[in-house]
Amino acid sequence: MYSLTTTKMCSKSFIETLLQRAQLFADGKEPWKCNGTVVNVFFEPSTRTNLSFQMAAHRLGLHVLNFDCTNSSLKKGESMLDTLQTIEALGANIAVIRSSEDWPAMELDKKVNISLVNAGSGVKDHPTQALLDALTIKQHFGYFQGLTVTIVGDILHSRVARSNIDVLTKLGAKIQLAGPEHYKADDLATFVPWVDFDEAIEESDVVMMLRVQHERHSEKFPYEIGEYHQKFGLTQERVRRMKPNAIMMHPGPVNRGVEIADEVLEDGRCKILQQVRNGVAVRMAVLEVCLLGERYGHLVSA
Amino acid sequence: MYSLTTTKMCSKSFIETLLQRAQLFADGKEPWKCNGTVVNVFFEPSTRTNLSFQMAAHRLGLHVLNFDCTNSSLKKGESMLDTLQTIEALGANIAVIRSSEDWPAMELDKKVNISLVNAGSGVKDHPTQALLDALTIKQHFGYFQGLTVTIVGDILHSRVARSNIDVLTKLGAKIQLAGPEHYKADDLATFVPWVDFDEAIEESDVVMMLRVQHERHSEKFPYEIGEYHQKFGLTQERVRRMKPNAIMMHPGPVNRGVEIADEVLEDGRCKILQQVRNGVAVRMAVLEVCLLGERYGHLVSA
Amino acid sequence: MYSLTTTKMCSKSFIETLLQRAQLFADGKEPWKCNGTVVNVFFEPSTRTNLSFQMAAHRLGLHVLNFDCTNSSLKKGESMLDTLQTIEALGANIAVIRSSEDWPAMELDKKVNISLVNAGSGVKDHPTQALLDALTIKQHFGYFQGLTVTIVGDILHSRVARSNIDVLTKLGAKIQLAGPEHYKADDLATFVPWVDFDEAIEESDVVMMLRVQHERHSEKFPYEIGEYHQKFGLTQERVRRMKPNAIMMHPGPVNRGVEIADEVLEDGRCKILQQVRNGVAVRMAVLEVCLLGERYGHLVSA
Repeated sequence: MYSLTTTKMCSKSFIETLLQRAQLFADGKEPWKCNGTVVNVFFEPSTRTNLSFQMAAHRLGLHVLNFDCTNSSLKKGESMLDTLQTIEALGANIAVIRSSEDWPAMELDKKVNISLVNAGSGVKDHPTQALLDALTIKQHFGYFQGLTVTIVGDILHSRVARSNIDVLTKLGAKIQLAGPEHYKADDLATFVPWVDFDEAIEESDVVMMLRVQHERHSEKFPYEIGEYHQKFGLTQERVRRMKPNAIMMHPGPVNRGVEIADEVLEDGRCKILQQVRNGVAVRMAVLEVCLLGERYGHLVSA
Repeated sequence: MYSLTTTKMCSKSFIETLLQRAQLFADGKEPWKCNGTVVNVFFEPSTRTNLSFQMAAHRLGLHVLNFDCTNSSLKKGESMLDTLQTIEALGANIAVIRSSEDWPAMELDKKVNISLVNAGSGVKDHPTQALLDALTIKQHFGYFQGLTVTIVGDILHSRVARSNIDVLTKLGAKIQLAGPEHYKADDLATFVPWVDFDEAIEESDVVMMLRVQHERHSEKFPYEIGEYHQKFGLTQERVRRMKPNAIMMHPGPVNRGVEIADEVLEDGRCKILQQVRNGVAVRMAVLEVCLLGERYGHLVSA
Repeated sequence: MYSLTTTKMCSKSFIETLLQRAQLFADGKEPWKCNGTVVNVFFEPSTRTNLSFQMAAHRLGLHVLNFDCTNSSLKKGESMLDTLQTIEALGANIAVIRSSEDWPAMELDKKVNISLVNAGSGVKDHPTQALLDALTIKQHFGYFQGLTVTIVGDILHSRVARSNIDVLTKLGAKIQLAGPEHYKADDLATFVPWVDFDEAIEESDVVMMLRVQHERHSEKFPYEIGEYHQKFGLTQERVRRMKPNAIMMHPGPVNRGVEIADEVLEDGRCKILQQVRNGVAVRMAVLEVCLLGERYGHLVSA
């Protein structure tokens, strides 16, 4: 039994194995039929990620239950442990956990006998998002070595950014960050370069836009929408200056006219729907490895 | 791949084919086992319609997912397109859409490669409701030609009324409308007669009551409940004046003592539960035709 | 077709049959594959009980639908009848009903042709909870005759207490009650002894703690948390005075540090997770008997 709670403990070769397996599912290959039950434990609502895991579980032949956490709090590791122990006692095999706060994944993983899959936690980890982004890049370029990936937006609060930095760096890409100074992250400053968006746009192979998450900020959003779009959005003007073979990505859902202009969304180099497609394939690979992990060799448990 | 977004583009013979197929399911015939996933996209809550589609999908062997739209808005066709493209990218086959507002069905249907089924939209279309009502009438009378159907209540805001007018007229019935003058609909005035309820009750073969939808009116409901019931409700007195073989219908859920008196609900000629039963059968036929449409010949895509 | 709406009408031998069957499921025995649909009708939210019934239904091969009752009221038996008749007309086989209020189970059971399973109602009945508690006790001791079971806490508002008193008394155990005088229940006073918790702790074979349900009390909770814990909680001091072979139970979820001290939850004699495990097994047996009841002989319909 394996867990996937952070990419930090995944080796390059394990990530590559997961991506290969996911590609087979993306190509329509049928998985080994698994038996078991997945429980989605979403302390933070996320319709799309929840549905993506449900689709993945269904294609594997698994049952899915939703543990309704609307009124729950994750403040104490203790209550999280109670929840996971209950899910284990109910007979489930995998808990897929989404939370706006970090939780002590390694500690909890030792105390329960079910697989834990992190579907996004705090500002640090979103392993399946980084994997599906990597798969999307691999499908387009065929390789990672030497690619320049610019991540743009609210870096400070972004688990998507941090997980992608970890995964794509391991795979050989060069990452750089851009966006409002206001959203610069101290923990990343020493090892990921901060660049000017308008200069970076011309040298990037991948431009990865982050969602403006009004709902997650306690402080007031310091920009007018139009101003944000002009300064840090993918406008048609910027897209014209991109390399011909470069691609654009976004974890979704897009705020149209904020991160990305309406017309740009129609551009074939905008890979957002491909990311959604790959999300199901990657999550199938992750759930499968949780249940049948030995076939892949060792997945480091977080 | 077919869609069913309005009855307006369905021919009489296509409607008849759907009703025949639904009757087989109502009789307990097992369907072709289909493979696929239905996503229920309900921007407006409707427990019963949602469950009816879920039952229908299960009996066909399909998976059902719920796309939670509680906090979503349908104001812009754009966001609806984003939602449907996401559902397609997740790998689903059919989106069942319920919405209090109209949406540009024909336009959206061209842009996505999944079937769209309208589970009620705006004040104009509720195709599966009209089909299940038609099936209920057909089971009782065996024919439509020459039947007089009186639809009673809030015509102005009723998609049930408009869809039934379209379907039942095509099938040969004669429709007339009654209810508060306040709820008369200009768009229907020129081609569907407005009648006095107390006169109509004696000549109707079908009395179709509409639900008083307090929740949908921004303006204040202009009647006392008791007054509405006395003027426009199915009281025992009115039921006594009905033709012996006439039937009563209601799309549910009934406001007891408002549209229909408690005692009248016990009357064998009150077909409400039969409508619920037929709802599952009709929705099976609709979902099946979406997936396997060629077997039925051409279903006009809305 | 059988219903299980109260344990009051279950004979001792029927209860024993259910427990035997549940033990087989707890041991991993596969059930007869059933066909059918269970609809969960929860007027009062209860994530764990809902999931437990879903797991049980899945293991039996049944479909589960959730009838969303968030905005519904159970004030009138009539609306409950409408709901159940609709569920029947949709083609479901079993309605699992949870409600903070009592409902006229016997009367409704006669009017619909589906099985009714009570998942907790009012302050009187919670049959599957009492059955899973009985199974947990039986697994530990092997018998009931002569065991002393002390139920502790808010007896007044507790359906768990009342259902356990009924079932465990039938099985031969001796029940006594303890807790705040404030929560003494007049209806139980004449036939179940009220004891001092600190004396009872030393002579009890089973100490069954009730949940402090802040959410269910309209009146103010009359204790400080710390004070309640000291007077009526399972502190380490009290646990040290328990018989060596005695066990502790709680219907969950526990308010840590209120009913039970954190450290006590780690004690092997604390059977809370075993109760969760047994919940699925017992509910499998109940759903199975609803669908295939004749194999077990007569289950008295409530």
